Amino acid sequence: MKKISHIGIAVNDLQKSCELFSKLLNKDFHTEFVSSESVTTAFFKMGESKIELISSDQDDSAITKYLKKHKEGMHHLAIDVDNIQNEIHRLKKEGFRFLNETPKIGADNKLIVFLHPKDTNGVLVEICQSR
Amino acid sequence: MKKISHIGIAVNDLQKSCELFSKLLNKDFHTEFVSSESVTTAFFKMGESKIELISSDQDDSAITKYLKKHKEGMHHLAIDVDNIQNEIHRLKKEGFRFLNETPKIGADNKLIVFLHPKDTNGVLVEICQSR
Repeated sequence: MKKISHIGIAVNDLQKSCELFSKLLNKDFHTEFVSSESVTTAFFKMGESKIELISSDQDDSAITKYLKKHKEGMHHLAIDVDNIQNEIHRLKKEGFRFLNETPKIGADNKLIVFLHPKDTNGVLVEICQSR
Repeated sequence: MKKISHIGIAVNDLQKSCELFSKLLNKDFHTEFVSSESVTTAFFKMGESKIELISSDQDDSAITKYLKKHKEGMHHLAIDVDNIQNEIHRLKKEGFRFLNETPKIGADNKLIVFLHPKDTNGVLVEICQSR
């Protein structure tokens, strides 16, 4: 495990939250539509990591379902690795379970898998590798 | 705003969670008692940032109160700045409110203030400066 890739924050209104986080962080951002997750994201670069705002206008996306049950706020913690297959292998041997074991294409041109939050103290952990 | 200082994760059983996160992150950690918050923390270094586990055995600590209302999980997002007084001044001008306006001494030898989560999309944001 190399470094924090990003912190994902679920928001209801992306435009409003982008304005808010621009003021808070005193930074610019760029947005991206991620088809695999049916979400639009905005990334704010913070040193070697990023803060990612996530929103969706599609009823069946994981973020829409999350925001129906929970308030806006920190949604997941993403960690960069050099080799995602090696990490999946290592973590499975340690007993961790995955929400998806086959890496999918996430935001920011990365291959991603999610660990089961029941195995990680309630934190939704994403493991990612740059493509 | 310079970089992500750390992600604070509230946990019920620090020892158990330290073992879990050691396996997850494949990293060592060090623990510290923070008297200003009545909590014990464990830090795992991840690149230029850290992951902080936070626990408390004192009934009146903010973390104990938090864990009575919420499940374990991500609790706050801490951002490093060069000059905390300048940032407090800038953020107040932008309309952000603080839980404490006078910096207090937090973990990891830092001066810290917390922003009001109602102003930051439900995210508890800590601003910190190394002493």
